[in-house]
Amino acid sequence: MRWWGWGEEGHEASLPGTALELLRNQLGVDPSLELSPVALEAVRLPEPRLPASARERLAGAVGADHVRDDRQARVEHAAGKGYADLVRLRSGDASSAPDLVVQPASDGEIEAVLAACADARIAVVPFGGGTSVVGGVEPVSEGFAGVIALDLRRLTGVTVDRLSQTATLAAGLLGPEAERRLGAEGVTLGHAPQSFEYSTVGGWVATRSAGQASTGYGRIDELVEGVRLIAPAGELAGRAVPASAAGPDLRELIVGSEGILGVISEATLRVRPVPPRRRYEGWSFRSFEDGCEAFRVMEQAGASPDVARLSDAQETSLSMATGSTGSAANRLGQAYLRMRGHEGGCVAIVGFEGEEDDLERRRLRCAALLRAGGGVGLGRGPGEAWLRGRYAGPYLRDTLLDHGVMVETLETATTWSNLGPLYAAVSGALRDTLAQRGTPPLVMCHVSHLYRSGASLYFSFLARQEQETPLEQWRAAKTAASDAIVAGGGTITHHHAVGRDHAPWMRAEVGALGLEVIRAAKERLDPAGIMNPGKLLPA
Amino acid sequence: MRWWGWGEEGHEASLPGTALELLRNQLGVDPSLELSPVALEAVRLPEPRLPASARERLAGAVGADHVRDDRQARVEHAAGKGYADLVRLRSGDASSAPDLVVQPASDGEIEAVLAACADARIAVVPFGGGTSVVGGVEPVSEGFAGVIALDLRRLTGVTVDRLSQTATLAAGLLGPEAERRLGAEGVTLGHAPQSFEYSTVGGWVATRSAGQASTGYGRIDELVEGVRLIAPAGELAGRAVPASAAGPDLRELIVGSEGILGVISEATLRVRPVPPRRRYEGWSFRSFEDGCEAFRVMEQAGASPDVARLSDAQETSLSMATGSTGSAANRLGQAYLRMRGHEGGCVAIVGFEGEEDDLERRRLRCAALLRAGGGVGLGRGPGEAWLRGRYAGPYLRDTLLDHGVMVETLETATTWSNLGPLYAAVSGALRDTLAQRGTPPLVMCHVSHLYRSGASLYFSFLARQEQETPLEQWRAAKTAASDAIVAGGGTITHHHAVGRDHAPWMRAEVGALGLEVIRAAKERLDPAGIMNPGKLLPA
Repeated sequence: MRWWGWGEEGHEASLPGTALELLRNQLGVDPSLELSPVALEAVRLPEPRLPASARERLAGAVGADHVRDDRQARVEHAAGKGYADLVRLRSGDASSAPDLVVQPASDGEIEAVLAACADARIAVVPFGGGTSVVGGVEPVSEGFAGVIALDLRRLTGVTVDRLSQTATLAAGLLGPEAERRLGAEGVTLGHAPQSFEYSTVGGWVATRSAGQASTGYGRIDELVEGVRLIAPAGELAGRAVPASAAGPDLRELIVGSEGILGVISEATLRVRPVPPRRRYEGWSFRSFEDGCEAFRVMEQAGASPDVARLSDAQETSLSMATGSTGSAANRLGQAYLRMRGHEGGCVAIVGFEGEEDDLERRRLRCAALLRAGGGVGLGRGPGEAWLRGRYAGPYLRDTLLDHGVMVETLETATTWSNLGPLYAAVSGALRDTLAQRGTPPLVMCHVSHLYRSGASLYFSFLARQEQETPLEQWRAAKTAASDAIVAGGGTITHHHAVGRDHAPWMRAEVGALGLEVIRAAKERLDPAGIMNPGKLLPA
Repeated sequence: MRWWGWGEEGHEASLPGTALELLRNQLGVDPSLELSPVALEAVRLPEPRLPASARERLAGAVGADHVRDDRQARVEHAAGKGYADLVRLRSGDASSAPDLVVQPASDGEIEAVLAACADARIAVVPFGGGTSVVGGVEPVSEGFAGVIALDLRRLTGVTVDRLSQTATLAAGLLGPEAERRLGAEGVTLGHAPQSFEYSTVGGWVATRSAGQASTGYGRIDELVEGVRLIAPAGELAGRAVPASAAGPDLRELIVGSEGILGVISEATLRVRPVPPRRRYEGWSFRSFEDGCEAFRVMEQAGASPDVARLSDAQETSLSMATGSTGSAANRLGQAYLRMRGHEGGCVAIVGFEGEEDDLERRRLRCAALLRAGGGVGLGRGPGEAWLRGRYAGPYLRDTLLDHGVMVETLETATTWSNLGPLYAAVSGALRDTLAQRGTPPLVMCHVSHLYRSGASLYFSFLARQEQETPLEQWRAAKTAASDAIVAGGGTITHHHAVGRDHAPWMRAEVGALGLEVIRAAKERLDPAGIMNPGKLLPA
């Protein structure tokens, strides 16, 4: 993966000229801007600070070939893939780079590494795919003798219990490899976050990830049957059972712990047979409000598809312009929708996966409810276009950055009765804050995860990047949106996790005493306080 | 509720003479035995030990009318409703009675009570319906200046968010009252543990309860959107949101905490519209193994009913003898089943609740899968008989105790691939242990909660009660079964919770470090260690 952006070299995404034109017109971006990241050789890196004795002990723990402090390795582990990370990296700032990248291949090696780091007061950042967009893998070394990135990619075991539809997957498996190995046994996890190509099983569990199909397959926390945490104080691994009444559920303490309690080395996850058939289609609603109401009725009737997404008018219009919902289908569709009074409306994608008969039964039931809610079917075109482009978002970000466009996403969840007010509050906060800075944004939103009691809201916003002060601009927008989320009764994050960026809002999220409880668990599991400092808990 | 048994006076259950005869023949019970509990006046109670100053402060906190230390109140709060509790209470032993019963009516009053108790080192036992069958509400006072039962029954608030299908219910609501209040708003929680008539919302949440319809409606832990804990150190209440990625899920630390961390004062729970229709029916399988396999296929196809129960051959035969699956239907059914080669087979109950059309669609799909799995439909008779008798089990226990029959239940859950071996191991342990004591038992089992990855196993056993040493006999059986569960990879409890009885197996369940983490949370929330001592954590 590119150290300064998303994807591998040669997989650049390009925006249609018309889309770029539209963005420039709407955002006031200078069309002559052509920015590019500095060369790897020009990146500024601090000198590695690890004491020689510690480096030696770590090399002894995992083998000399599996400790790296070359420029490439350090830069690749210097940050995640958030907007602020990319801005810094592209400008050549890798001041947060770890002193060493350590690659263990077993639980025993992880234990040995943690023991060495606890003894030498070296901070440890568990690192899977490194795709965090909230600063979750950024090394923090203040107060430590150094910091290592504990790269888990060598942990790749898979065992499947087909009868029980569970699979034990090692933390370091990337999405495609995990699904390939499961597929060979006829099963799937069905977990498809937008980062799927570059994120790992361990990362999903550590960040309480939700995939694009989590409405059907369940969030990762719903898929965890068992999980193993290697903490500096020892191993924590509850029984992998379907359900239990044996006290507090410690699995739920490990899931979402973001490396601050220890290293998730493997998880036993609930899987399903590979669906023989998929069908994705588009729908249109007159308004976001109408679409949300139709989705609520559908979800509460138990009639939801596996993927259910509804874009607001702004996101719909921009995705039509960029062709990401299928441009041929769009042209026809737009004419039809104009006729039905849906012009300027909102597109929804619903996707079904499963056995032929069952899928068709579910699809018809869902369609009846959507139609009753004012939806107009757009057929398979937009659905298939969405499927093709489902992992494309982050690639586009690099292109936008090349053209001086700020692009960021953030998300929350709330109850159905609070969905409309929260949508308005967060959109408004983003618009006001960026307009006040003289960079009025395009703010878009979609609903993408449905629950009986509510749904997620996922915001994307674009603005002209402040060339001198891009991080201040970003921080102002992020802060305004986070304050609005918390004040409006939403959760500070539905699936991006907390990391460094959301930590200041954790007191509002769980209360002062909640923070104390998490700290108490951390002190017991990580007495030296070396695990992923600066993340999840506010300073 | 009767202080020495189940239900209210005048609701005695009687066993058909033939059933009693059968039990006597099979278990060797002396037919002349006619035992009865001692009179309330004869119960042995310790002197209340609370310092006068503490009693005064508690009376000040909740009002003088709401602190009670009369005989009736103390005896009613001396124990739960487990077999060992009943044996002790019937014999007149209430040595565990609390010094005072305190009845707060608000969060503020709970806080004041906890502060008073922390200052005076008085242990606090949160008490809802008092139906624990694992010693969860038994006062423990060693090392304390006294112990109070904190009776939460005055907390009865209900607010409903119909759009979001959530309801905030106060901890002290009994099942019937909670459902009556929800029903007035057109919704239901659908949570129906066998203790439904006498257990409370707070108790369900504190014990991680599962109801008889949890296959459809979800376990209580799946229904918790938010929960408030009043701990000695303060209030812990996460946001009530459908889902979040904001770190470890602290709700899951409160759910199942059994009073050791603080007092659950209210929970926001996910509710549904009251189902307009119910349909319950019986099925028969040639063997328990066949039935389990059919249930697995059904569940993994997403075709499960709301209630799914499968009795093994022993439970089927005894429930036919006691008429609890509908005796007229039984006689016809038995003839039919003989014809189909199912004699001595296993009866299943499947129940559907919902809208007419949807219910019928689900029922037909389920029936097709059960039939393909070797099931033979028995029609509605057995289903409706089961519904009528769904809360009857605990009443029967009193009658059996009157006749010198030991009766106990215990439960676990495991994966589908481990279900058969665990069933054999636990049944065998109970049979061997009790046979060795000269009291060979009848051991019965049912599967009653289905998950994609596995199911629960619920064992009941009956044996001739050792009249001199009933508690030693019980402890031997309970220990053997618990050891077998843990050795066989099951959870020590699927829905009865831990209490005092399962605490010795918690080390096996969550590991030494898991216990340490729970203790760390407890120390932070309950620094004086006054909350429900002796429960959940092993000594």
